[in-house]
Amino acid sequence: MTVSPTPTPAATVEQVSESELLSVFLPLSKTASSYVEVGPGDDCAVVAVPQGRVVITTDTQVVDQDFRVRWPNGYETTGADTAHKCAAQNLADIAAMGAVPTSMVVSMTLPGNTPVQWVQDFATGLAEAFDRLGATDCALVGGDLGRGRELSVTATVLGVMEDGNPVLRSGAGAGGTLVHVGALGLAAAGLSALEAPPGSGWDRVPEHNRRELERAQLRPLAPILTGPKAARAGVSAMIDISDGLLRDAGRVARASGVVVDLDPAALEEAVAQLAEAGNAAGVDPWRWVLTGGEDHGLLAVLPPGVQVPPGMRAIGSCAPADRRPADIGDTAVTIAGQDPGQWLGCDVGEGWDHFEP
Amino acid sequence: MTVSPTPTPAATVEQVSESELLSVFLPLSKTASSYVEVGPGDDCAVVAVPQGRVVITTDTQVVDQDFRVRWPNGYETTGADTAHKCAAQNLADIAAMGAVPTSMVVSMTLPGNTPVQWVQDFATGLAEAFDRLGATDCALVGGDLGRGRELSVTATVLGVMEDGNPVLRSGAGAGGTLVHVGALGLAAAGLSALEAPPGSGWDRVPEHNRRELERAQLRPLAPILTGPKAARAGVSAMIDISDGLLRDAGRVARASGVVVDLDPAALEEAVAQLAEAGNAAGVDPWRWVLTGGEDHGLLAVLPPGVQVPPGMRAIGSCAPADRRPADIGDTAVTIAGQDPGQWLGCDVGEGWDHFEP
Repeated sequence: MTVSPTPTPAATVEQVSESELLSVFLPLSKTASSYVEVGPGDDCAVVAVPQGRVVITTDTQVVDQDFRVRWPNGYETTGADTAHKCAAQNLADIAAMGAVPTSMVVSMTLPGNTPVQWVQDFATGLAEAFDRLGATDCALVGGDLGRGRELSVTATVLGVMEDGNPVLRSGAGAGGTLVHVGALGLAAAGLSALEAPPGSGWDRVPEHNRRELERAQLRPLAPILTGPKAARAGVSAMIDISDGLLRDAGRVARASGVVVDLDPAALEEAVAQLAEAGNAAGVDPWRWVLTGGEDHGLLAVLPPGVQVPPGMRAIGSCAPADRRPADIGDTAVTIAGQDPGQWLGCDVGEGWDHFEP
Repeated sequence: MTVSPTPTPAATVEQVSESELLSVFLPLSKTASSYVEVGPGDDCAVVAVPQGRVVITTDTQVVDQDFRVRWPNGYETTGADTAHKCAAQNLADIAAMGAVPTSMVVSMTLPGNTPVQWVQDFATGLAEAFDRLGATDCALVGGDLGRGRELSVTATVLGVMEDGNPVLRSGAGAGGTLVHVGALGLAAAGLSALEAPPGSGWDRVPEHNRRELERAQLRPLAPILTGPKAARAGVSAMIDISDGLLRDAGRVARASGVVVDLDPAALEEAVAQLAEAGNAAGVDPWRWVLTGGEDHGLLAVLPPGVQVPPGMRAIGSCAPADRRPADIGDTAVTIAGQDPGQWLGCDVGEGWDHFEP
C-alpha cells in the first residue's frame, strides 16, 4: 500500500479514494462528545445511553428536491449550508421529543465532480452548526461516503432524555394551550427569494432583509434547547414544524383526537415581519406563516393550568374533536374557529408533501 | 382533508402522496420488537437500550453504483432484493461488534416512475430479510420517503451488546488465530454473472449454480448470529468483510498493529467452489476469494489458547508488525508469508474502494 498525498481542496472527489477523502473529512469533524465510546472508523460507533432508551430520527436532503447547488438568484449552496440544514432538521426532531442529541451518522452520495472543498466545508459546517444550535455534546460518530450522480445527504441522529419520558404528538388534550418557539414562514420566504431570478420583485427588498430570509431557509435556527425545557415544564405533546404550521398542528390534532384552533392575533407579528417580502414576491404572508415548511420551530401543547415555558408563546388552544363547528368538515385545525381556507379567503392546502404530484 | 383511496401497486410514486405511500408501506413492514417503545409516526422513534450503550452503523445503496435496476444479464432488481441487501450490509456491521440488532431507520430516494409495488416489495422483503438473517427481534422504526432522480436507500441500524464489550477491529494480537464465517468471493462471482450479457462465457455455467451466485450478490447471507457468539467465545477483534478479505484483513492488521498471514490451504475450498464460474468468466477464482466484496461474512481474531467458536474456521494467523519479511514492504496481509500479488502472480490490489477512480 502506498501512502497517498493529502488531496488539495481544489481536487474533486473522483480524483481521490474514499480513504483519502476521509483523511481530510474526519480531522475537520467534531467526533467527540461525552457520550461517544467509539467514534468513526470501526464497523459501528458505540454511544452511551445511560438512561435506558434512545430516540432516533433520520432525514435526507436531495439536490433539486430539498436544495439547489446553484439557486436561480445566483447563490451557490456550500457544504456548510448543507451541513447546517442537515443538523437543524434532524436535531429539531430530537428536540421535539424533549430529548438531547448525542450523536449523528451521515451518509453522503457525491457526484464525481463535487469539490473536495465542499466535503471539507460540510465537516466544518456541521461542527459549527452543532455549536450554533446548542448541541454542544453531540458528535459525528460515523457514516458512509459514496458516489452517485445526484448529491444527497442522509443523517441519522440519536438523542437521550435527560429526565422524564419522550413527548409524543399524541398527548394533546382538550383545554390545552398550543405553544410555539421558532420562526414561522421565514424559511418559505427565503426559499422564494432564492428561487427568484434577478429582475424579480425581490429586488425591491433591502439586501440585508433578503439575505436574512435566505439564511433562514439555508441555515434554519432550530430552537433545539427549548425542547428539553418544554418537556420539563410539562408539555404533553410536541412536534417539529417541518411541513408548515397547519399541517404539523393537524398531525398533533389527529394523533391526539382533538381540534386545534389558532389565534390569529398571536401570529400577526410573524405575518407583519414578512409583509414587505410578501408584497415584493406577490405572496400573502399569511400563507408563508401558515403553510411554509422548513422553519424547524417547535409546536407543543400545555395541559390546562401549566405555565407557558420560557421562550415559548401561546398561539392557540385545543378542543375536543367533536366540538368543531359543523360547517368545517374534517378540518383538524381552525383559525379563530374557521376553516383556514375560509379564513384566508383562498385555498391554502395544508403545507408541504414530499410526494405531492 | 379528503381521504384518498389506497393506491394500487400499479401506480408509480409520483401518482401518490407521501402519506398514501406510507399507508401501504408501513402495514407491510415489521415495526415491532421487544426493544421498540415508539415506532414509526412521531418525530423520533424510541428504542430501549437496557445495557447502557448502543452500537450504530449506516450504509447507502445507490443505483448504478451499488446495484442496477436492470442488470446486463436481464435480471431486474426487486424492492425485496434491495431490502435484503440493505439488511445484510447493515446487520453485518452490528454483528461485527458482537452486537444484536434492535432497530432500523430507512431513508429512500425514489424517482417518480418507481412503481408503488417496488416500495411494497421493499417492506415485505425487509421483514423477510430480518427473519432469514436471524434478526428476529429487530424492527423498522422510522424513516424518510422522498423523491429524487436517482434511486437510493440508506439504512441506519442500532444494536446492543447482550453481554460484554463491543469487539473492535483493533484488538488483534500477535499469536492470534484469524477465523472466518460466511461466503468468500460468492458475491463477486455473482456480480460478474449479473454483469454478463447473454452470449458470454457465463452461459456455460449451469443455470442453478449461476442463480445461486447471483443470489449471493443480491441477497447475501450475512452470518449475523455468529457475531455475538464469537464475542462470547472471546474473539478480541472482528470486522465485517464488505470490501474483500485482503482489504478488511488489512484493516484489522493496521488497526491492531499486527501483520496477518492467510493460510491458502484454508481458502482452497472456497476457491474450488468458484473454479467452474471463474473458468467461464475468465477470472482466477483466487481473485474473487481474496478481493471480492459484499459477502458480509465475519473475520475475527482469537487470542492464543482460545477455541475456534462454533461455525467459524481458522484461515490464518497474526504476527507482530515488525515480523514481516523485509521484501514485502508495507503489506499488512500476506499469504503463506508472501505478498498477495507475488503469491498470485499478478496485481490483486486490495479490494473495493467506493471512490477508486
